[in-house]
Amino acid sequence: MEHEYGYFTETDSIDVVIARNRVVGNERLKEVMPVIIRKLHEAVKEIESTQEEWLEAILFLTRTGHMCDDWRQEFILLSDVLGVSMLVDAINNRTPGAASESTVLGPFHMKGAPLREMGANICLDAKGEDMVVSGRILDTAGHPVADALIDVWQANDEGFYDVQQRGIQPEFNLRGVFRTGPDGRYWFRAVKPKFYPIPNDGPVGQLLEMLGRHPYRPAHLHYILSAPGFATLTTHVFDPDDPYIHSDAVFGVKESLIAKFELVRDAERSKALEFAGDFWDVKHDFVLVRAKDQAA
Amino acid sequence: MEHEYGYFTETDSIDVVIARNRVVGNERLKEVMPVIIRKLHEAVKEIESTQEEWLEAILFLTRTGHMCDDWRQEFILLSDVLGVSMLVDAINNRTPGAASESTVLGPFHMKGAPLREMGANICLDAKGEDMVVSGRILDTAGHPVADALIDVWQANDEGFYDVQQRGIQPEFNLRGVFRTGPDGRYWFRAVKPKFYPIPNDGPVGQLLEMLGRHPYRPAHLHYILSAPGFATLTTHVFDPDDPYIHSDAVFGVKESLIAKFELVRDAERSKALEFAGDFWDVKHDFVLVRAKDQAA
Repeated sequence: MEHEYGYFTETDSIDVVIARNRVVGNERLKEVMPVIIRKLHEAVKEIESTQEEWLEAILFLTRTGHMCDDWRQEFILLSDVLGVSMLVDAINNRTPGAASESTVLGPFHMKGAPLREMGANICLDAKGEDMVVSGRILDTAGHPVADALIDVWQANDEGFYDVQQRGIQPEFNLRGVFRTGPDGRYWFRAVKPKFYPIPNDGPVGQLLEMLGRHPYRPAHLHYILSAPGFATLTTHVFDPDDPYIHSDAVFGVKESLIAKFELVRDAERSKALEFAGDFWDVKHDFVLVRAKDQAA
Repeated sequence: MEHEYGYFTETDSIDVVIARNRVVGNERLKEVMPVIIRKLHEAVKEIESTQEEWLEAILFLTRTGHMCDDWRQEFILLSDVLGVSMLVDAINNRTPGAASESTVLGPFHMKGAPLREMGANICLDAKGEDMVVSGRILDTAGHPVADALIDVWQANDEGFYDVQQRGIQPEFNLRGVFRTGPDGRYWFRAVKPKFYPIPNDGPVGQLLEMLGRHPYRPAHLHYILSAPGFATLTTHVFDPDDPYIHSDAVFGVKESLIAKFELVRDAERSKALEFAGDFWDVKHDFVLVRAKDQAA
């Protein structure tokens, strides 16, 4: 039949395997598979894995697959801790210098969070250290962006999202959507988020331990920012003083995403904000790119 | 805390992720992880995968994991069809020129197959085309190897191993262990094996279809050959006239593993072998390497 194929040899392994594929009608797969095969074989050739090591890898992937269900995606966690999720995010969100950078979405976004009045407190259970967050949504020329939607969500002061504590936290706790006016300004009240571990009771947690790494993500607020005519931005804002700011388990931190978290001891400002005492003041501007300027 | 880490950037992604790992007490993991991370990131950078494609890959791996159970190892199948299993086999079985080459073990070896008299018929249900297999076990200098154990197993003429058809085929059908005498010769009777598909009702089967590939392995006999003082050899012998000899789904064929399968029409020889009529004559010598000469 197909006599043009060579038989397998260690030296020619990449060419032999690639030559076997005869993808029809899927140009992208035709392009992608040779890269996957080449890099996979290059890795095995460089590692010179033993049969036992190869089997260990097979069983690790199997355990990772078995850990996945409707609520847990262990392969995404694996991608996260190996920096692959951030790499894919970076490749798909190359922005001009002035624009705010993106970071990973994470698994805790909820569609349908309520649109709230500017200034609203998204903390519904009054637990945690008070925080006020404010800034502007700007375009790359520095002009305010009106009608921008700011979809924000965050963990509470124990490091849990509402969806992780149904029945303990109120529904849509620490979530909200805000819409900017002509001045592009936004502000809302919340509580200071806390660092938290990614799920580490599975194979990926074991891998992290073998790699001498902790499972924590530094405290952050999540944002999806959208506005008519602009590219949607999925990003975080981080607390610079978090103990894990330099070692996010999923590599989500970028220099430009670190905000100022200032502790304010000012009774008058506290009172005006309806806070009981000291509070955190977080200021951060976001710069959106016009959709037509987003790199392909 | 750990301020020497840089933050993630697309350009520095490989270094940032590798620098984060602090493996202690596992020199091999310390060596292997950077290669895995580098090749993984190189692949993603070259492919420039979209978020949707990345998710597709995650879901493919998840389905592959979910397909695995005590009887089915879909990740090994994936490794097989991407040529990785053969590559690992090749790396771990580099042999001097004269020696017989190895190939993959496959999932159907059974420990404890009966030791049989030289010449025995391993086909216990008399189904299929009669076949006699013979040859010598030699060392690399061409001298016969005595006391070599020849552990042979094969599919029947419908392409099934006994363990795939419990209750249909007799136990240990088409399996046996033979021991050579001082002349290093072996012979046994069996039936001509048939090509068969690897399990293709899962994600790997779907991948093969997308790649324009069939799931078949050309007809072969499996061998594990061992002898005191020699490196154990796991290999196959293939039928050169099989329709899939040039396109083994798992890349197991090597030129040197193709034997002669000669159809014999000779009433006298048939009678001597206790065959009813025409039969297949398969001649193949194996050359074993002394354990001390096996490449590390």
